[in-house]
Amino acid sequence: MPQISVRGLQMPSSPIRKLAPLAEAAKRDGVKIYHLNIGQPDLPTPRQGLEALKQVDRTTLEYSPSEGYLSLREKLVGYYHKFGIEVRPDEIIVTAGGSEAILLSFLACLNPGDEMLMTEPGYANYISFAVTAGINVKTVTSTIEEGFALPPVEAFEEAITPKTRAILLCNPNNPTGYVYSPQELYRIKEIVEKHDLYLFSDEVYREFVYTDEPYLSAMSLGIDENVILIDSVSKRYSECGIRIGMIVTHNRLVRDTVMKYCQARLSPPLLGQIVAEASIEGTEDYTRACFEEYKARRDFFIKGLNSIPGVFSPMPHGAFYTVVSLPVADAEDFCRWCLTDFRLDGETVMMAPADGFYRHPDLGRNQVRMAYVLKKEDLQRSLLILRSALKAYNRR
Amino acid sequence: MPQISVRGLQMPSSPIRKLAPLAEAAKRDGVKIYHLNIGQPDLPTPRQGLEALKQVDRTTLEYSPSEGYLSLREKLVGYYHKFGIEVRPDEIIVTAGGSEAILLSFLACLNPGDEMLMTEPGYANYISFAVTAGINVKTVTSTIEEGFALPPVEAFEEAITPKTRAILLCNPNNPTGYVYSPQELYRIKEIVEKHDLYLFSDEVYREFVYTDEPYLSAMSLGIDENVILIDSVSKRYSECGIRIGMIVTHNRLVRDTVMKYCQARLSPPLLGQIVAEASIEGTEDYTRACFEEYKARRDFFIKGLNSIPGVFSPMPHGAFYTVVSLPVADAEDFCRWCLTDFRLDGETVMMAPADGFYRHPDLGRNQVRMAYVLKKEDLQRSLLILRSALKAYNRR
Repeated sequence: MPQISVRGLQMPSSPIRKLAPLAEAAKRDGVKIYHLNIGQPDLPTPRQGLEALKQVDRTTLEYSPSEGYLSLREKLVGYYHKFGIEVRPDEIIVTAGGSEAILLSFLACLNPGDEMLMTEPGYANYISFAVTAGINVKTVTSTIEEGFALPPVEAFEEAITPKTRAILLCNPNNPTGYVYSPQELYRIKEIVEKHDLYLFSDEVYREFVYTDEPYLSAMSLGIDENVILIDSVSKRYSECGIRIGMIVTHNRLVRDTVMKYCQARLSPPLLGQIVAEASIEGTEDYTRACFEEYKARRDFFIKGLNSIPGVFSPMPHGAFYTVVSLPVADAEDFCRWCLTDFRLDGETVMMAPADGFYRHPDLGRNQVRMAYVLKKEDLQRSLLILRSALKAYNRR
Repeated sequence: MPQISVRGLQMPSSPIRKLAPLAEAAKRDGVKIYHLNIGQPDLPTPRQGLEALKQVDRTTLEYSPSEGYLSLREKLVGYYHKFGIEVRPDEIIVTAGGSEAILLSFLACLNPGDEMLMTEPGYANYISFAVTAGINVKTVTSTIEEGFALPPVEAFEEAITPKTRAILLCNPNNPTGYVYSPQELYRIKEIVEKHDLYLFSDEVYREFVYTDEPYLSAMSLGIDENVILIDSVSKRYSECGIRIGMIVTHNRLVRDTVMKYCQARLSPPLLGQIVAEASIEGTEDYTRACFEEYKARRDFFIKGLNSIPGVFSPMPHGAFYTVVSLPVADAEDFCRWCLTDFRLDGETVMMAPADGFYRHPDLGRNQVRMAYVLKKEDLQRSLLILRSALKAYNRR
């Protein structure tokens, strides 16, 4: 039997999905599971998007252009303008979700062996895609005690080596919910300019910022040739399944190189583009309602978490995740146990062990990532289950 | 400005799509273009698939499982059974088109620097994905004079080095239309077993075999741990845009490794899965009609090509492509010229220069790949344009 690739062996399992088989087994036993592990919103997709599907009057579901439909990219120009991001349609490349946007950006910009800096805890799939592309991820640690604020510039400077070619930011942050202030971003800009780095800026949660401070996109920092914006409609329109994301950059060489990869994979999903395009305009009320809903869920959920003995969550100011410390030594073991052993009236919770979001093997062992994308009653029930589970687990 | 990656520079441009900007410019001038360059069928998608879209009654377009919906994979089991391919649903992983199936198979099975053998001319995007994965492609040349038959086993044996870890076959072949006989496949099996190689078998055109010989899948060769089947619904149901492909293998370790990549990219397109699932059953009449239509187009088109002075095309026995030699020294220059300079009553043709399908830089210079996926009137008109264009080009 031929051997698996070394990189395949090195590829980490998703901390968000790796416990899925245990959840499947529990479901087969009739157990109801509250999914706090994954950012799969239960909010409806905009009516306009769903209706666009019913209106599809094509007879052939053909390839779209490799860069995505112009009509979609033109609508995105208007969307970005509202956030102070000024781009032309040809500066936008449509991808199969934010996931493909990340991978193709890495492939086009970085060589195997290059180093990329990101904060930890960080979205685990960045590391997966970095492994895929042979890139070495170095992390600068943000701590739960400081509410996962951006580490000081000095920490980044210390981590930079001659091999460092990029910094990756997720703002608002998944998994911590932290929103970088303009001051913090301008400090990052200094480092990026000084060392002539790429700045990958994943801003898929820009719609969900709960502070009054103005949101600043990396695209507005004035370092046009360095910034690669990673985006996706998945979260803002509850359209995770349609797999529509985008790479946006003023750097023409990067675009031309990304396009070679895009042509090899032929085209992004056609039907998703139709839904996404219909969701962009006339959905201001929808967006506002989603924002209010997530804000209310956040307020309720974080308060509830902190009322459980030994549990601590900072207040996240954006996105819809939080990293929470639990009164357990091994959060992954606890997460597994919740799926295999614990039931409260036939129900349990699924969480993502946070160690998969850290690079340093000792960090985050007692932490989990939770997404507050469920409706309030479900969050309430989840809190009750978590409280009981912790009590039972620590009493074993 | 930071530099582009070396692999990004090495990434070839798609020979199928790289002339697209010239075609766009011509279209803006009001020129009608017959697209012989791309396998984008003009046949309709099955009614069942289109109707499934209108029936979507979900309120949230959520992530699907990373491996694809079980209901789709169960239907595929029945589909494969009809071709003598016996698999379980868990041996099928749904991907974003055959494209993603190729890339993820390479990543999971091969290391950077490993060698993979394929025949040339070969589907250009295999080379693109190999470059993406850092794999060295070595080619065994099939010739237009021999109708692109599989080169003898000795040619493969000669090309094998200690670094060779895989053979890739496309059967029926894109771009040549060649269909490998059971005898040829059993010879490949010998080599695969002898050197314990992976055998990637791209069989997306299995529906379109125009000979009476029985079609043999690599999955039926009895080398279960070595074979990775690459598949896609794009061509067989005229659903190129929905981006639904699959990796099928009995090798559990390969599946587990591919799944780590699949989890990182979260899920395959949801809407495409709905369309694909609806297209699998009850479409026997559709499939038969498509087959007859392509067969008639082939007969008409190949005869027409060979009636043009200096033009030669072997008779392809499968798929819907053919590689054609033209009476020109530089087929790419001719293809460009057709788009920029030549018009017959305001119309022209677009073809894919074949040199992009060869690894050896000297081969295929006077050849083009054409897809006969247009209706007969359009093929007839394309032949007329080609005849006139060749005459005018060679008279300049």
